[in-house]
Amino acid sequence: MIKDKSIQAFLDELAGKAATPGGGSAAAVMGAMGAALVSMVANFTVGKKGYEAVDAEAAELLRRAESLRRQLTEMIRADVEAFDGVMAAYGLARDTDAQKAARTGAIQAALKKAADIPLACAALCAEVIGLTRPMAAIGNKNVISDAGVAVLAAEAALRSAALNVYVNVGAIKDEAFVADRRQRLEQILAGSEALTEEVYALVKGRL
Amino acid sequence: MIKDKSIQAFLDELAGKAATPGGGSAAAVMGAMGAALVSMVANFTVGKKGYEAVDAEAAELLRRAESLRRQLTEMIRADVEAFDGVMAAYGLARDTDAQKAARTGAIQAALKKAADIPLACAALCAEVIGLTRPMAAIGNKNVISDAGVAVLAAEAALRSAALNVYVNVGAIKDEAFVADRRQRLEQILAGSEALTEEVYALVKGRL
Repeated sequence: MIKDKSIQAFLDELAGKAATPGGGSAAAVMGAMGAALVSMVANFTVGKKGYEAVDAEAAELLRRAESLRRQLTEMIRADVEAFDGVMAAYGLARDTDAQKAARTGAIQAALKKAADIPLACAALCAEVIGLTRPMAAIGNKNVISDAGVAVLAAEAALRSAALNVYVNVGAIKDEAFVADRRQRLEQILAGSEALTEEVYALVKGRL
Repeated sequence: MIKDKSIQAFLDELAGKAATPGGGSAAAVMGAMGAALVSMVANFTVGKKGYEAVDAEAAELLRRAESLRRQLTEMIRADVEAFDGVMAAYGLARDTDAQKAARTGAIQAALKKAADIPLACAALCAEVIGLTRPMAAIGNKNVISDAGVAVLAAEAALRSAALNVYVNVGAIKDEAFVADRRQRLEQILAGSEALTEEVYALVKGRL
């Protein structure tokens, strides 16, 4: 499993001559780091002296951040598989008309999956960004900069995932599918940049 | 070595109850991912048909990106060590006046190192951002979205490192040191956001 590779090996493969892992997996790793840092701030808040009033809220943020972290970690692998699926479809035989039609159908189906994985990744990242705001507001001041890193990582992951959606829908012929996914993506992106800057400013103010 | 840990283990430790690894290491990982993705786009450009005219430029970008990647990967460990140095200094004995003076000196020295590591990380990330612009302009269109993910990762890393500089200079009493490092940081940050948006738009336009 790609999540079991060392950071060094992952970076080496990212930099290398193979198409996977690529930006889609990098986006999932960044999103998972964002969720992990929300968890870290929550872990320094739950049960800590001076933070009794926000204990339950921090515990709930921790629970939600850990759920998002698990799902985003899963996306690292899912993105590679989706891309490999597209490559496999392009590699199908195209000697006869029947083969050509089957290959075209397989490519289109694989591209839809390759668009839906980063779209799901983007939605998870937007949820992480949503958690950083309350976490930055109530979290332990000693580690509050980590809430700032969390929102920056999640926002970079969200916009990175968006690029991977754009790439894949660009080759999809089903116009209704493309319009639907583009609309969903714009809804996910809407407001995330402003919220990120709000959280960053909130963190800087509490440093 | 922390870079030899698996992605899963790194994320678990990031999320956990220990102060390290924290946002400083996460910033270094994101910066290294940015550099790795510049290398990936360069690797898909050097020696590729249709990109003969930019071959030498892409090879030079690859060389510089790999150098930055090595330095940023090293920063993952350096940030943990610098933080641990601060914690160790805070833990020194303070029973006598001499011990108290020695402890204060040790804390201040450790904080200076803990500010200079993320400052160096920020400078490296700014260099990565600088590489993404020519890479996005000349790189193989098939992997151009990865140049977009590269710039987003590097910019998130830069701003994350900046938060860690702010945190540490906040506790440093040497006003000349603080003023100098703040000035250097602002110089590094200046223009990076605008350049990031420029590269992102360039990538979106080439998708």
